[in-house]
Amino acid sequence: MMHDHDTIVAPATAAGGALAVIRLSGTDALAVCDRIFKGRTPLAEAKGYTVHYGRIMEGERTIDDVLASVFRAPHSYTGENSVEISCHGSSYIVSEILRLTQAAGARMAEPGEFTVRAYLAGKLDLAQAEAVADLIASSSQAAHALASNQMRGGYSASLETLREKLLYLASLLELELDFSEEDVEFADRQALRETLEQIGRSIDGLRRSFALGNAIKEGFAVAIAGAPNAGKSTLLNRLLNDDRALVSDIAGTTRDVIEEQTNIDGVVFRFLDTAGIRATDDRLEEMGIRRTLKSIRRAQLIIHLVSADTIGPDGSIPQPGFTLNPEQKLLTVVNKIDTRPTLALPDGVIGISAREGTGIDTLYHALRECVDTQALLDGDPVVSHSRHLQALSQASEALQQALSAFDSLPTDLLAEEIRAVTSALGSITGRGTITSDEILINIFSKFCIGK
Amino acid sequence: MMHDHDTIVAPATAAGGALAVIRLSGTDALAVCDRIFKGRTPLAEAKGYTVHYGRIMEGERTIDDVLASVFRAPHSYTGENSVEISCHGSSYIVSEILRLTQAAGARMAEPGEFTVRAYLAGKLDLAQAEAVADLIASSSQAAHALASNQMRGGYSASLETLREKLLYLASLLELELDFSEEDVEFADRQALRETLEQIGRSIDGLRRSFALGNAIKEGFAVAIAGAPNAGKSTLLNRLLNDDRALVSDIAGTTRDVIEEQTNIDGVVFRFLDTAGIRATDDRLEEMGIRRTLKSIRRAQLIIHLVSADTIGPDGSIPQPGFTLNPEQKLLTVVNKIDTRPTLALPDGVIGISAREGTGIDTLYHALRECVDTQALLDGDPVVSHSRHLQALSQASEALQQALSAFDSLPTDLLAEEIRAVTSALGSITGRGTITSDEILINIFSKFCIGK
Repeated sequence: MMHDHDTIVAPATAAGGALAVIRLSGTDALAVCDRIFKGRTPLAEAKGYTVHYGRIMEGERTIDDVLASVFRAPHSYTGENSVEISCHGSSYIVSEILRLTQAAGARMAEPGEFTVRAYLAGKLDLAQAEAVADLIASSSQAAHALASNQMRGGYSASLETLREKLLYLASLLELELDFSEEDVEFADRQALRETLEQIGRSIDGLRRSFALGNAIKEGFAVAIAGAPNAGKSTLLNRLLNDDRALVSDIAGTTRDVIEEQTNIDGVVFRFLDTAGIRATDDRLEEMGIRRTLKSIRRAQLIIHLVSADTIGPDGSIPQPGFTLNPEQKLLTVVNKIDTRPTLALPDGVIGISAREGTGIDTLYHALRECVDTQALLDGDPVVSHSRHLQALSQASEALQQALSAFDSLPTDLLAEEIRAVTSALGSITGRGTITSDEILINIFSKFCIGK
Repeated sequence: MMHDHDTIVAPATAAGGALAVIRLSGTDALAVCDRIFKGRTPLAEAKGYTVHYGRIMEGERTIDDVLASVFRAPHSYTGENSVEISCHGSSYIVSEILRLTQAAGARMAEPGEFTVRAYLAGKLDLAQAEAVADLIASSSQAAHALASNQMRGGYSASLETLREKLLYLASLLELELDFSEEDVEFADRQALRETLEQIGRSIDGLRRSFALGNAIKEGFAVAIAGAPNAGKSTLLNRLLNDDRALVSDIAGTTRDVIEEQTNIDGVVFRFLDTAGIRATDDRLEEMGIRRTLKSIRRAQLIIHLVSADTIGPDGSIPQPGFTLNPEQKLLTVVNKIDTRPTLALPDGVIGISAREGTGIDTLYHALRECVDTQALLDGDPVVSHSRHLQALSQASEALQQALSAFDSLPTDLLAEEIRAVTSALGSITGRGTITSDEILINIFSKFCIGK
């Protein structure tokens, strides 16, 4: 189904604007449109990249005055003949035009089907296609930079460089096999090992970038944790306050955890609400604390919030009631410093008064510093899809296998392991491998209608 | 301000789609775009009605890959040079492009400002411009037909015909004044009176059409009234049930009255929730009943719902606890007929079982019959704006004044009254009168941004 060139149609804009755009693509897209579009000349006779004024008619009844933009294969997004109908933004008009185009021979597009066709026409690779959806969803500067770089092929190019190096090495090894009776060595084993190690480091670098890429795409998860009455809710409100317009409630995957998000200097932060942690006999409170510990485990950064009145006379800060895993960052923040103005805080500890707003800018700055987006701004490849991370892990595993048995592996098995690495890398962009319909459907079903 | 040709910019589509369109218009619109749009050739060199692929850039940074459609004065919606930028539908990208176009010399458009310019350029008259907003808001077939006919100028043409007849009569009378010393009569007084009476009937016809036009535009208001336990809420749910997708809660002007609407065969019906009516000593219940009587007064149709078990053995139907005004329609409906299967109902009374769904189709049909949309489908002019109704009332009043004193009025005063009628009619389309900025702002401020 996905490889057909039948004419598909979908609304490409959301309901509720002054204008709406309806998109058609397929070999017969122009002919299908001409059955309902009455302009000065038929669209089938129009040149590509031209706009035509006309009316959408059902018999004698005018549905709307529209502009139709014509694109001709292969110079269109999908590589097929395409029409974009720009009509008045009424839900009734849009539904009528969709109904009429279907009666005229089009069918409703599946989510992402326009982009599938662009991929199948070789206009985009898979990673670029996935970035199209990311770009549409991007709501912050960093998420935009991430998707934009990937869509423009920066990430694909990095992968292709690695893949080409590996293909070259594999072919050298295979050449040896062809001349195996002559016992020649085309590939210098020491140089080969070094190259593989170097590629392994590149792959590991990409895998590590996922922490950043995922945080940028999904929002950087911050848990505010601490003893009861440390002022966690006050701090949360304070952190969100200055940016109310961007605040929204998001029901988390766990039904009981409420997240609020805000944009700090181009990066979205998701703050996780947590209950106060303390030893308790109350079963209900204990359940709340267990949930808290769970959301702490999900966070990339934990703000350990300590009330100034719980700090000892020697300035010692109480231990947090939770432990961190090695990837998590910790910010220790002392609240209510207005109540103890003479308190001296250790280096790296931030003093605030959530109630009065003191020190909040310092905290914003410290939070933003925890997300190093320099790589993004430099245009370095950053991984943001778990599908890509999985493929990189497979590549890394195959590479480790090759390296660990490097000296003992016969040439043909070594070549095979290297081929496995290239194949895993190729699955990210869809280059050099065959991508099954199942994978395509899986990737593109997450797209919105009309893209 | 409204008469300038400076470059205005606004998003023309709602947030949340695959694509977004940003619209620019003004003498320098192409030059403004060229400051941020990098394509194969500058847009300033492009022909009208052509589409151009390129990138929106901020210095070296790419904001998005876009398509720019170019329209050249006077062949555009506004009559000015215009560009429509079609970008990826990300809120971040849209806000960045708006920021950059403003930095490049555009300013954000006021609501409706594109259409104001179309009006000032003579592309549309006022009634047509107002219909553009109606068309965008239309969500039913009837509302669409109403706006569509008005936008295509059917209504304006009717008004213009009346106005031209009157102008001709006024000029004949004025000709008499020029030759007053010779005592000639260019205008046959009897024919003049008949023509004025005929025009008066046309104006009254238009005024009467407002009941339909307003019902179509705002939804036909139906109150379901009756004694407690007649089954009003069950009926309401039943009426909305079959069309859940189109049901929505609308908080009415009175805060306590909830309205629910549904589409019956192309017409939107608004059902008003009411409390049961009965004599009561309970002060709170009495307040509810007073609110009910108030919403009954707002309704165009009242369903008087009667429980079958309150019908006498002689088949007599209890009197409703409310009175109607002459414009209101009444449908008497007997509920719970399943409990009295042998009950014979008088003609015109509809028997239903809201609980079991019996008779509901008959009721839908009867409701739909109450709104005669034939005039709309025939393309007859139908008034739907209270501004127009007001102007028509002014015209009617001036006309009555002229007719009532027809024989006693001196020619110059008669001509003046006729001019007053033409002026009132002209204010609807903005033709033959000067429309103040205040009126324009009042009309166009109800538009959405980007139109």
